[in-house]
Amino acid sequence: MARPTPLSGFPEWLPADRIVERHIIDTLASTFELHGYAEINTRAVETIEQLSRKGEIDKEVYAVNRLHAEPGEERNPLGLHFDLTVPFARYVVENAGKLVFPFKRYQIQPVWRGERPQDGRFREFIQADIDVVGDGELPAFFEVEVPLILAEVFGKLRDIGVPPMTIQVNNRKLLEGFSLGVGIDDVSGVLRALDKLDKIGPDAVGQLLADECGANDEQVRLCLALAQIEGDDASVVDDVRALGVTHPLLDEGLEALAGLMTAASERAPGAIRAQLKIARGLDYYTGTVYETVVSGHEDLGSVCSGGRYDNLASSGTKTYPGVGISLGVTRLMSRLVGRGLVSAGRRVPTVVLVTVADEDSRADADRIAGQLRARGISAEVSPNSSKFGKQIRYADRRGIPYVWFGSSDGDQVKDIRSGDQTDADANAWTPPSEDLRPAISAT
Amino acid sequence: MARPTPLSGFPEWLPADRIVERHIIDTLASTFELHGYAEINTRAVETIEQLSRKGEIDKEVYAVNRLHAEPGEERNPLGLHFDLTVPFARYVVENAGKLVFPFKRYQIQPVWRGERPQDGRFREFIQADIDVVGDGELPAFFEVEVPLILAEVFGKLRDIGVPPMTIQVNNRKLLEGFSLGVGIDDVSGVLRALDKLDKIGPDAVGQLLADECGANDEQVRLCLALAQIEGDDASVVDDVRALGVTHPLLDEGLEALAGLMTAASERAPGAIRAQLKIARGLDYYTGTVYETVVSGHEDLGSVCSGGRYDNLASSGTKTYPGVGISLGVTRLMSRLVGRGLVSAGRRVPTVVLVTVADEDSRADADRIAGQLRARGISAEVSPNSSKFGKQIRYADRRGIPYVWFGSSDGDQVKDIRSGDQTDADANAWTPPSEDLRPAISAT
Repeated sequence: MARPTPLSGFPEWLPADRIVERHIIDTLASTFELHGYAEINTRAVETIEQLSRKGEIDKEVYAVNRLHAEPGEERNPLGLHFDLTVPFARYVVENAGKLVFPFKRYQIQPVWRGERPQDGRFREFIQADIDVVGDGELPAFFEVEVPLILAEVFGKLRDIGVPPMTIQVNNRKLLEGFSLGVGIDDVSGVLRALDKLDKIGPDAVGQLLADECGANDEQVRLCLALAQIEGDDASVVDDVRALGVTHPLLDEGLEALAGLMTAASERAPGAIRAQLKIARGLDYYTGTVYETVVSGHEDLGSVCSGGRYDNLASSGTKTYPGVGISLGVTRLMSRLVGRGLVSAGRRVPTVVLVTVADEDSRADADRIAGQLRARGISAEVSPNSSKFGKQIRYADRRGIPYVWFGSSDGDQVKDIRSGDQTDADANAWTPPSEDLRPAISAT
Repeated sequence: MARPTPLSGFPEWLPADRIVERHIIDTLASTFELHGYAEINTRAVETIEQLSRKGEIDKEVYAVNRLHAEPGEERNPLGLHFDLTVPFARYVVENAGKLVFPFKRYQIQPVWRGERPQDGRFREFIQADIDVVGDGELPAFFEVEVPLILAEVFGKLRDIGVPPMTIQVNNRKLLEGFSLGVGIDDVSGVLRALDKLDKIGPDAVGQLLADECGANDEQVRLCLALAQIEGDDASVVDDVRALGVTHPLLDEGLEALAGLMTAASERAPGAIRAQLKIARGLDYYTGTVYETVVSGHEDLGSVCSGGRYDNLASSGTKTYPGVGISLGVTRLMSRLVGRGLVSAGRRVPTVVLVTVADEDSRADADRIAGQLRARGISAEVSPNSSKFGKQIRYADRRGIPYVWFGSSDGDQVKDIRSGDQTDADANAWTPPSEDLRPAISAT
């Protein structure tokens, strides 16, 4: 074949970078499981009808059809899921009788978006989602649990050189209650205006509030003052109260925020930041909302977003409220790889290359490798029996740290980084634990 | 939404079954890594052109199009990959300059086939592939390595109750050399006839050989005698030689088979069986071929197939020979789940449910759960502070084995299976290791 070129929007990693991605995915999965979240995988396709339930989003859907479908065959047209929330909601309703609620699940899978090719956006990317969904009701403390789990993941990812990530939170009830409290009924208008704050600045937002929502000077002043409030602990609640606005819904929102910030400042200091200007997604979410910025990489946008929704799904008279958050694994990876921020110490899992003196002794080398593997040490046998120097270069090019020499006089193992060579027994020798798996670290 | 019904051909598992599937996938991945295989993931889509390279297969392809594509936009139409070999071959050629050869990779991902809906076949299923690919050349001992790695996986899967699996092997060169040695030049005709042996029996195959390949009685007798040869060790080679047929290509095939069966009978006794009637895939593969039957579930067909190919891919003057094998994870899972052969001991990863006496003490329960998690013990906090009996039922319905009671007088932990309740310290208590993860076993 002619050498193919990559397809724009469909990233793939070389083996060494896949090791980094797998470490991130394993860290997510093991942390989610430590908190009792069960894994599910859903099929890649949903009916176009399911995918269209939110309206406009169907613009981004990839439709799937049998290439040689017969006319009229596809009565139930399919598309690739564009997120993991739509399939999860469908899965919950489909299997409701077989699940136990509150149902805590995690899901790490690719999603697809039929972005315009020239956008340079991802068309296939991995997301990692956790959600808790209740049957009819869901206590507010899950709005605290979900971001704290991600903060725990981010803490672990710091160990391999991933830059610090901060989860920014706000609350729909707080903003809605505040709007109503200052006397602006057009809550959506306020959210739309605040959403533009970083882009157009406070003066223009004030003008928008006046023009679009009919806000007077005092109302504008209060909204802009609210949007400036931010902080790492529950003191932000006092800052809001100091503005003197009151409304029952505002109280509800402040109580939820206080609970979250109290827990966050105690259990994950600095990882979660109240940021009351955040308005994105507030038209969809009904309680706490989350966005996540990577320090020094704010241009990436939010890599981890979510929130509370009172109606993830409904079926008949039942509703399923939920709270969830979704990490863009590929978005994060693309930055780590693209900027060379994090790398794996080798491109293979192999710890030991067992050399082969001549082809007649290949079975001996196989036996040595088997003894090492039986004790969990990844080993491969040299694919050739050329000069040892060439076999060592085979190991070196892959980053394999140790080379083994079998002999009837007794075996030896060489650390090819230091050159140290010592007597060794394949049934007993163990490498330092940091060599057992490829080391992943900041570059 | 109305309660959705499953889409035929797109299996999904409940959380407890996903635990079984994950165990299988993790066993595959960790065994592959012990042997030095590096993981890659490829994108879900290839160009239709790439997918069509093998000809007829494009009938089964799912095409992918932006639902709202503009006319003329898709100059490079895409489809979902139907196996992992086509994307791997493309990946090798695309990244050849950045890979080191022989390149050993594993890949565990879904594939899609646009089967006719009424076939009841899978339209989305997970495959687990390993391949070794060389740059220009690839030593024959990799034809031994690849099935032995799968035999090692199958041995480990026996521990969770998966029925025994036998890898059946044959060799293209052996059959081709034998045909030529007995004087039948129409090798493809011989392969096609032998492929029907189990279905139509030896007499009808003999007739086919006579009618289609012009074989005389003696040639028919020899071919049928060859097809009956099978065995667990290198003695099958003597059985072939006893037929008195000679040809240089037959010698090559017998030497390869002898090497494989010698290693197999030593390193994985009984796991690999020479079965000289196997002809499926021999038109594609060029050396050893593999098929795998599950004992007692022969109706499933082969769950793990592969072989040696001298030309996985080529680019310019370069060719990349390879040897690989592919396990149908979903095919195996569907039988394990469908027949209830294997099950997980609980449907959540949680080891301990920390009870909550009242909502004021929820923070204490969170702290206890955090202490357990810090030592790798999956813990969740009760979502309610109702009577302890109800909280214990919450644990029981999920299969969570332990319930924790925090108290200022000292904590206690209860094994809800035995009823045993003992004093415990969240910074020190450890469950028996078999409780740390859901036990998976034969049902």
